[in-house]
Parts: sequence; structure tokens; C-alpha cells
Amino acid sequence: MVAPQGFTAAGVFCDIKRLGTGKGSDKGPKRDLALILSEAPATVAGLFTTNQTCAAPVKVCVERVKRGRARAVVVNSGNANACTGREGLRDAREMVDLTERVLSLPVGTALVGSTGRIGVQMPMGNVRAGITAAAAELGATVDHAARAVEAIMTSDSRPKQIAVEFKLDGRVTRLGGMCKGAGMIQPGMSPTGRRPASSPLHATMLGFVTTDAAVTAPALRAALREAVARSFNRITVDGDMSTNDTVLVLANGLAGDPKAPLRDPGSAAFAPFQAALNHVCLALAKMIVRDGEGVSRFVTVRVEGARSFADADAASRAVANSSLVKTSWCGGDPNWGRIIDAIGYSAAKVVEEKVDIGYSAPGSRKILWSLRRGQPTKATFKELCAAVAPREFDLHIRLNLGSASALMYAADLTEEYVAFNKGDVADPNSLGG
Amino acid sequence: MVAPQGFTAAGVFCDIKRLGTGKGSDKGPKRDLALILSEAPATVAGLFTTNQTCAAPVKVCVERVKRGRARAVVVNSGNANACTGREGLRDAREMVDLTERVLSLPVGTALVGSTGRIGVQMPMGNVRAGITAAAAELGATVDHAARAVEAIMTSDSRPKQIAVEFKLDGRVTRLGGMCKGAGMIQPGMSPTGRRPASSPLHATMLGFVTTDAAVTAPALRAALREAVARSFNRITVDGDMSTNDTVLVLANGLAGDPKAPLRDPGSAAFAPFQAALNHVCLALAKMIVRDGEGVSRFVTVRVEGARSFADADAASRAVANSSLVKTSWCGGDPNWGRIIDAIGYSAAKVVEEKVDIGYSAPGSRKILWSLRRGQPTKATFKELCAAVAPREFDLHIRLNLGSASALMYAADLTEEYVAFNKGDVADPNSLGG
Repeated sequence: MVAPQGFTAAGVFCDIKRLGTGKGSDKGPKRDLALILSEAPATVAGLFTTNQTCAAPVKVCVERVKRGRARAVVVNSGNANACTGREGLRDAREMVDLTERVLSLPVGTALVGSTGRIGVQMPMGNVRAGITAAAAELGATVDHAARAVEAIMTSDSRPKQIAVEFKLDGRVTRLGGMCKGAGMIQPGMSPTGRRPASSPLHATMLGFVTTDAAVTAPALRAALREAVARSFNRITVDGDMSTNDTVLVLANGLAGDPKAPLRDPGSAAFAPFQAALNHVCLALAKMIVRDGEGVSRFVTVRVEGARSFADADAASRAVANSSLVKTSWCGGDPNWGRIIDAIGYSAAKVVEEKVDIGYSAPGSRKILWSLRRGQPTKATFKELCAAVAPREFDLHIRLNLGSASALMYAADLTEEYVAFNKGDVADPNSLGG
Repeated sequence: MVAPQGFTAAGVFCDIKRLGTGKGSDKGPKRDLALILSEAPATVAGLFTTNQTCAAPVKVCVERVKRGRARAVVVNSGNANACTGREGLRDAREMVDLTERVLSLPVGTALVGSTGRIGVQMPMGNVRAGITAAAAELGATVDHAARAVEAIMTSDSRPKQIAVEFKLDGRVTRLGGMCKGAGMIQPGMSPTGRRPASSPLHATMLGFVTTDAAVTAPALRAALREAVARSFNRITVDGDMSTNDTVLVLANGLAGDPKAPLRDPGSAAFAPFQAALNHVCLALAKMIVRDGEGVSRFVTVRVEGARSFADADAASRAVANSSLVKTSWCGGDPNWGRIIDAIGYSAAKVVEEKVDIGYSAPGSRKILWSLRRGQPTKATFKELCAAVAPREFDLHIRLNLGSASALMYAADLTEEYVAFNKGDVADPNSLGG
């Protein structure tokens, strides 16, 4: 772990699902409340779900992130604090206020994230105890980070974190991130939580990035938009955009020159930082899809040759979210008919006689075409089955109508996804957000 | 069976899937080619998939239906004749030409429909033999109709047909319909197969309606649009719009006064005909959803109080196609959080604090509310579970922002749907369209 300097973390169990005490595993119940603290003042940027049904913690963060300064993030799993009305908003505010108080932070510098079931009021007694306990346990070791990562997980089968080290103006700089997300995943995040009119729409995913680079708040905002546009906003597990999607990045500058923070996202000096942020966001985004609920296949849907980005985006999302395409991936069936059907009903302009569809190993340009210019190739059914048999492959779709492209990192649809999400009504705690 | 006068039908097995002969059940293999014939000249109207990847038989029908006159329809299952290029178009034309020849019909009066796997050329030797055999077996009995219905089925578990009798200007008139469809179901049909710019987009479903009413072609067209807008275009099984969706209605006038056909869809005289057509189309559309692949729940999603029909439509489709909402229905989980999440990411304007969500028995206005004005009601989890336990229920969503409404007839998402559609790649014939 190459953790950025000056950040500490903690993760505790405070029983946000009100499991009581009897339900823990041998290791004790899963942690459910995390704290991340920057020892020094940090700049901050955030992107938030564009869902109009937007959770209380998102509302609180959207307001606070605008100021561009933050010190801490408190995050809980087990309850989304969404559709909880005024009481929910009061609770989210109490969470940041209490975090500031117990950590002696300036007012307005704590942020909050929540994930879990929608429409249940937060058990604030437990939450208060959790924040106090977490504050007492903050530390900078690998174990501390691991506990925080565990605390933000819901249906995730494994923790998701990554950190990188790079040089900025000769100084060793670090950038690390953690995230959660497995279902209700097709984020479409914007800085204000408001939806750009022209933008495509589309779990809860929560992502928290920390860096000891020195970056101004506006530059950090631009860098995060760029990174998320290529990562979290290009993933789908089940096509459902959550009420709680949140990505935050805090930059405390401890590895940089506080008098000369990075301020120009277009500059050569900025490039290593942008590259590191892009890398971490993309790695985390892919972890979410690979660990998606019930997922057995990870497919990169690459649409090229569209008339416009909007068309490429629409075609890639139609394919990535088609139940029939996704079940065919699950079955190892190279059913290009379902793919051309999906692009045909998308909002993208498509001319059947121009469409190419093929498969490759991840990232490879050695493509086995199943369709060229709307006509089946000589590739045999057996060859095509072999191309879609691996756990990961790329699907190449060329519309041959223009030069725009888009890609989606997508998952198959399995019986396990359905079994998990239909839940067990005898045990409401089993029912996901 | 109250079959319209002057129509005959047949259904035969001609091995369109090239199963060989070893694969039949005790009763022989399922029939796969149907013929419907009007003994007298008939007016015709049709609506077709707006998928840009549009099958050859749809292209042929769109052109022919414009003339407003038809005598026969030839329909095959087992092969969609979609994405089959020029050869496919030639094959679809040969099917109508051969039908006209063997039945001694005027040129241009036969229509064609196909359903099955996409991207495989039609086995024309078998098709030709099938058309000739079907023509020899045409008849007007209940058995003849049943054979035709069987022949158009693919993954359908049961045949779908209905007929009604009503009076037009004192004369006993009949209207009957048959349809197929179980997967790749979210039709969005238009008269030209072209997509209205303002229209929402969204199986193969095939529907064939016959009547002995006398109706002019323009009036029949208007009547069909009205009926389909309230039926087939309001259903979804899996959100995938097919390349082949087709609904045709033929009116041969044998029960009416050929000199005074119905010509004014707004008139009192027209109303009984419109009512009969609406009734038959709606009954058939609901049969499709109830028999959808793996379906265990039939849910009528009723959105009211939207700012506009477009908003109501978008909200109803978002809910009806959300993987998380559909799996919760499968599990009997009254998870309104997933519902408000789905309307929140839809294109409809939604204000969380104004939303009501509730459940009733089908068609009942006795609603158990789970959410009023964005706040959970006092309804208990147990009561809500009881409301979503039945095989069929209505979901009421009130946006309380305006006066527009829309509804969708929707299905749950089950493990059986996934198991069926992931198919068995060892047996390509098992792989659906």
C-alpha cells in the first residue's frame, strides 16, 4: 500500500442494519461505518448521481463540495438515507456536524456518503456511537484502510482499493482510492447532481480518492470530471442508476509545493496527476463490474464509427443493458442477432448493411468478425463460441457511419443476479437497496 | 370459436429449423408455417417494428400494406429472416409470390411474417414445400385455426387467440385474433416502421386480426393505431424491441354492407368496431406478457399525475424495465425504494416529495399506499408483502405534477428467464431470436 501522506482511516461496526448482536460471523459482524481524515486542509471535488430521487447525503455533499475545501468523509453502509425526507436530511447533517466535532475540524469540512436500503430512517443512536468509535480508531496503516474499505461494502464480495505512486515536478506523489458497488450500477454523475440536458442518463457506487498532490479546487474538479467520464460513468451492471452514487477526491498537498499547486489541467505539469487519477478511477470502476452481483462475464463494449458521441453512447448502452444480450453472454452464446437488434432500437443512427460485429481478447485489435457490413462472415459457430467463452472479452461494434466512439464496461445477467436481488422477504435485512 | 366469415387458416410442419425428423414429440414436431386466407377481397392495415434493424418480411409488408388491400398472410416460426441481406429480401418476396400463385390470388395481395433466430438464411426448399402443403390444408374449423396458431409460436408455452361477436348497424359481425410472443418483447410499432421523432422507443411479437366487418383501409389504419397504442405498444417482457414485430388486421366486409363500409373512426357507428378491436388487441397483448419467458408475475404499472404523456410513458417504462424492480416482483418484495429510484433516473420530471406509490388488486381503486408524498405510510412490511404476493397486481405511481397518465403491462424477471435465454450452445437450435 502506497497510501498518500497525511490521510488516516477507520472502519467500525455500529449495527446500522440493526442486526442485534447474534448475526455476526466468526470474525464478528461486517464493519458498517468508515471515516477518512486528512490531517491537513485539502481541496475537494465531487461528482454525484443525476437521479432526481437523490439521497440526503448527496444533497449535503453537493452543497459542501462547492466550497472546494474538505477534511473528512464519514460513510456508512446498510442504509442509503434515501427517500427519508426532512428527517433524513437532518440526520445526514448531524453526521457531518458530529464528525467535525469529534475530530475538532472547522465547520463545513466534513462530507458524508451512505449506501444500503432505501426508505428507512437512519438509526442515529448507532450512527453517533459509530462516528465516535471510528474517530478513536483512526490510523494510517494498511489495516486501517482495509477496515474502512470493509465498512463501505454492501453486496460486494470483495474489497476494492488501489494506490499509485508517481512524480510531480520531481516529488514523489501518491494517489489512492477505494470504492464499493455491485448492484444498482449504471452511474451518470455530474458535479451538481443535476442532469445536463444533452447527457445520457444512467448503483450505488461510492468512490473515495485521496492524494497528497497539491491541486487547486477548480483544477481538481476538472480532473475528476475527465477521469469519471472515462471510468465510473462508463460502467453498468444492471442499468439501474442509484440515488446515492458519489465520487469524492481530496488533495491535501503534503507531497507538493503548497505555494504552487497544480492549476492548469491542460498543462504538461498536470499530465502525470491526471494520468494517475484516470488510472485509479478506471481500475476501481472495472473492479465494480467484475464484482457485480452474480456476474460471470466482463465485456468491454466498444462502439466505433458512430455519427456522434451521443450515438456511440446510446448504442453502447443499449447493448450493455439488453437483457437478451446479457443472458447470451452468460450462456457463452455468440448471438450477434441480439446485438444488432439492440443497436437497432437504440437512439443511435444505424444502417444494418454497414454494421460490423466482432470479438477479441481484452484490449486486443485481433478481432474475430462475426458480421461485416451486415453480412455473417465465414467464422464458424464453434470459433465464435470460443471467442465469447473467456471470463473477459471485448465486443467490437463498428457502425461505419462516422468517426465517433464510446465504450461501456458491462456485465452479463445471470441466474445468480436474479436469485440475489429477489431476496428473501422473510428476512428484510437481506433485501438490497 | 366465433370465427369471422370468409377466412380460412392452416398450419403445417415444414422443418424451418432443419431439425431433421428425429426431434418431434409424440404428436409430431411443432408446426412452423401458417397461412391465413380471406376468400373475399379485404382491406388491410398494419403496424411494424420501429427497430432500424428491420427484418425482410417487415420491409415487404410495409410496402404492400400501403395499398390497403390484401387476401392472405403467410407466417413462419423458427427463422426471423432478419439480418439476412438481399438474399433474405428475395426469400421474403418469394414467400408472398408463391403464396399468391398457389392460392391464385392477385399479385400484391399476400403478406408475410417471420419469427425465430436472427441472421440465418431461410431454408427455402422447406418453406416452398410448407406453403404448398398449407394451401392444400386451408379450412375454417376451430382445428384449422389452432394449427395456424401453433405454427406461429416460438418460445410461447401456450397458444394465444380470441374472437368476439358484436353488432354493427344491426348485423352480427365478428373479429378474431391470434398472436405469438414471449421474449424480445417491448414493441413500439408504427405504420411505416419508421420511428416518430417524438415517440418513445421500445419483441418479436406477431399479431393477426381478421374481421368480417366492412371498413375502408384508412379507417382500418386509424382504428389499428388506436388499438395498438393501448395494447401491444404498452407491453414489455424484457425491454428488447424485436426486428420483426408486426400486427396486421384484414377486414373482408362479408358481414357488412360492402357499399357502405365504416369510414369514420370518430362516428357512433364506428364505436362498436373500435371497441371490439381494442378488446381483442388488449386481450392478446396481455396474453403475451402473462406467457412471457419465465414470467411469474404480471404487473400493471399505472403512472398518473405526470406533466405530460411523454413523462408518464418514460416513468412507466423505466419501472417496467428496471432489473431491480423486476427481480423484487419475482421475490415478492414490496421494495418501493427501487421504484422511486427508477422513476428518478427516467426522463420524466419527478419531485421525490410529491410521489405516491401503492398497490391494488388488478383494476381495483382500493389502493394500499406504501408511500404518500415521498413519505413511507403506516402500511406494515407484512401488509405490503401481501399486496405483491399475488400472481397479478397493479402498481400505482402518482407523480402529482400534472394530469397525464400512462400504463405498462409488465413482467417480473426470474431465474427461469435467464436460464431460458442463456440457452444451450451445444444445441444452436435451442438459441432464441
